[in-house]
Amino acid sequence: MPVFSALGRRARPPTIARLMSLALDNPRLLSLAAGFTDNRTLPVAAVQSAVAVLAASPGEPEWLQYGANQGRPRLRELLAARLGAVEPGLDVAAVHRELFVTNGSQQALYLAMQALCDPGDIVLVDRPSYFVFLELLSGLGVEARSLPVDAAGKLDTPALGAQLGAMAASGERARLKAVYLVSYFSNPSGRSLDAAEKNALAATLAAHDAVVPVIEDAAYRELWFDAPHPAPSLLALPAWAKFPRLWLSTLTKPFATGLKAGYGICTDADWLARMLYTKGHHDFGTANFNQAVCEQALAGGAFDAHLAVIRPAYARKMHALHGALAAAGLPARGWRWREPAGGLYLWLEAPPALDTGLDSAFCRACVEAGVLYVPGELCFGDAVPRNFVRLSYGVLAEPDLTEAARRFATVAEKFV
Amino acid sequence: MPVFSALGRRARPPTIARLMSLALDNPRLLSLAAGFTDNRTLPVAAVQSAVAVLAASPGEPEWLQYGANQGRPRLRELLAARLGAVEPGLDVAAVHRELFVTNGSQQALYLAMQALCDPGDIVLVDRPSYFVFLELLSGLGVEARSLPVDAAGKLDTPALGAQLGAMAASGERARLKAVYLVSYFSNPSGRSLDAAEKNALAATLAAHDAVVPVIEDAAYRELWFDAPHPAPSLLALPAWAKFPRLWLSTLTKPFATGLKAGYGICTDADWLARMLYTKGHHDFGTANFNQAVCEQALAGGAFDAHLAVIRPAYARKMHALHGALAAAGLPARGWRWREPAGGLYLWLEAPPALDTGLDSAFCRACVEAGVLYVPGELCFGDAVPRNFVRLSYGVLAEPDLTEAARRFATVAEKFV
Repeated sequence: MPVFSALGRRARPPTIARLMSLALDNPRLLSLAAGFTDNRTLPVAAVQSAVAVLAASPGEPEWLQYGANQGRPRLRELLAARLGAVEPGLDVAAVHRELFVTNGSQQALYLAMQALCDPGDIVLVDRPSYFVFLELLSGLGVEARSLPVDAAGKLDTPALGAQLGAMAASGERARLKAVYLVSYFSNPSGRSLDAAEKNALAATLAAHDAVVPVIEDAAYRELWFDAPHPAPSLLALPAWAKFPRLWLSTLTKPFATGLKAGYGICTDADWLARMLYTKGHHDFGTANFNQAVCEQALAGGAFDAHLAVIRPAYARKMHALHGALAAAGLPARGWRWREPAGGLYLWLEAPPALDTGLDSAFCRACVEAGVLYVPGELCFGDAVPRNFVRLSYGVLAEPDLTEAARRFATVAEKFV
Repeated sequence: MPVFSALGRRARPPTIARLMSLALDNPRLLSLAAGFTDNRTLPVAAVQSAVAVLAASPGEPEWLQYGANQGRPRLRELLAARLGAVEPGLDVAAVHRELFVTNGSQQALYLAMQALCDPGDIVLVDRPSYFVFLELLSGLGVEARSLPVDAAGKLDTPALGAQLGAMAASGERARLKAVYLVSYFSNPSGRSLDAAEKNALAATLAAHDAVVPVIEDAAYRELWFDAPHPAPSLLALPAWAKFPRLWLSTLTKPFATGLKAGYGICTDADWLARMLYTKGHHDFGTANFNQAVCEQALAGGAFDAHLAVIRPAYARKMHALHGALAAAGLPARGWRWREPAGGLYLWLEAPPALDTGLDSAFCRACVEAGVLYVPGELCFGDAVPRNFVRLSYGVLAEPDLTEAARRFATVAEKFV
């Protein structure tokens, strides 16, 4: 038998795997759980034509060769310019230097945490937060602690001030290594942070001697329905200038998840160098082919053309699910949620006494009724409530979303 | 300033980066350093046609969607069957269960070490060994210690027995977590292990109570020139049956490095589960698109057709470099090397007193003469000799290989 490392010994079967195995037992199950995108709108023609352009381009086919550890220079340039176009104050040349391409933005999260955190360290996370990031922290032995929020879900900066004060008094402040935010159409809550909230957060951290690295995960920023969310990123807001920042985005969610290419922009040269050093050991560079395909799609306009197709498509799907749940009378039975302005998720708050957890009677009843969701309990770093549910409208077509909502509401009716 | 983790603090600029920056200062430099493959034989048409087949296939384009963390089931099946075809004794169904796809076999190495090793642990490595693996170990704070070899470069199992005995006596044995071997046309030595050598290694480890996890890196196995190397893998040799084994291969080197897809086969279910758990945090699955392209190339025969083209091409390139070095009179000046039977490298032993290291006068003189190599000093875990050189014939065309050999020999002539 192998003798495992401390990291190896912390390994647990991923919680979500239990959910998936439930799904396998029931082929007529409709899944509102997976954070996948819609197979029907995947950009088949755009990808095929990007490959054709690459194949026909003169010179050696370097796009099928190893690339640079930090990513393709031209792709990095295009991505920096693209961000500069929506954030007028940005220094695009600096962003280009600071930008690195990863195997989905997920890998950038992993590299960031490896460079910063030892077991026992603390990361402040939004409440609720991205559950794969929470599992990643747990895999590294790092403690996730929630940023306080008010009843409306907004950051509660006075409460954060008190929390940081208590951490300083108890000596925990030295273990606080980073802050993590999903700030645009969040997974799972669908919420976005406005500029005032972002500025208040910076001011509170700075006032409590907590100018620590901050990670802004903008994976869903491009998936707006009617208009982009107006708040500038942490890269552009002056209040954040003195913080080491890692800004994350992806080419995966808004284009083709199968290409698995994301990127980070890191304002701290030393932090960036240490992440790239470790990336050199993970893989010494994200697949050059995928990067070349994305580069082609960005340069040739296919990427934006695809966004123009999927934005209204996901808006319609959100409305289908939202409308069916509302029409089925969930609000009258004490369920609450907000209609998101982008992203892939509805975040439902059940009546306080209703347990929606993975081992709950409610969850079992939903599986029996043929509908799957992500229990909200997976999305909290601490003080875990049991009465939340994440529903994704990414995968299913509208008629299936309506049917899934009907099944979900039928179960909800029995658990008042 | 961020406060870095122990891992973050261990980060160093990759040694090879210094070499690359030398190269940038001299545009007429010919590089025998990079382990890249030949751009002229990359399978452009095969990749384009694989994408066309995928695009034309009926049903939803799941190949552009997220895939499974462990890899595409059909690709795993094809790879298991492919290995079964060259190793008749193998249980192909077991191999299919044990097989997982990674971002190049590099990621599998990283996952394996994360699951097994804490800082201060020891891994036995071949001598010489793959330098990116040695850097990976150093990044994780793990000590690489050489397996003893005799004057011909063969494993010296009596010496290994003595070494294991000493480790047991000193208490170091408890920190020995794994053994790592590049057993086919090794990077950097070009050597392959024969079956007797593999069996003797298993017997020696077992006799010294060191039935530890063993990693067999077979990245170059398919790149033979005239015939496959006859030794079975550690998966098939009965002497290894009781060892937890991780066997690594790649779709990258023999097809298109830009696709960056490799795979591992892990005989220990617990070890495999822990690696997959961590892979779920790195990226929750290697890019599905690349896997689908490889699957198509394997199933449709393009992968094997491509191998039939590149085997003689690399053989010719090896002969060009080897022949030019020999003709330039290096052997008469005390240089020694063996003609490899596959792979991408010549491994040269310089006269004992000649320092070929990164900071040596010899290395500077080569850069000035317009030729770049990998200093052998990077390829040793311990007791580092300074008089070795790795030359790759992967990238350059035959006339450039001849010219690079001429430049190298001109410098060697001045350093007798």
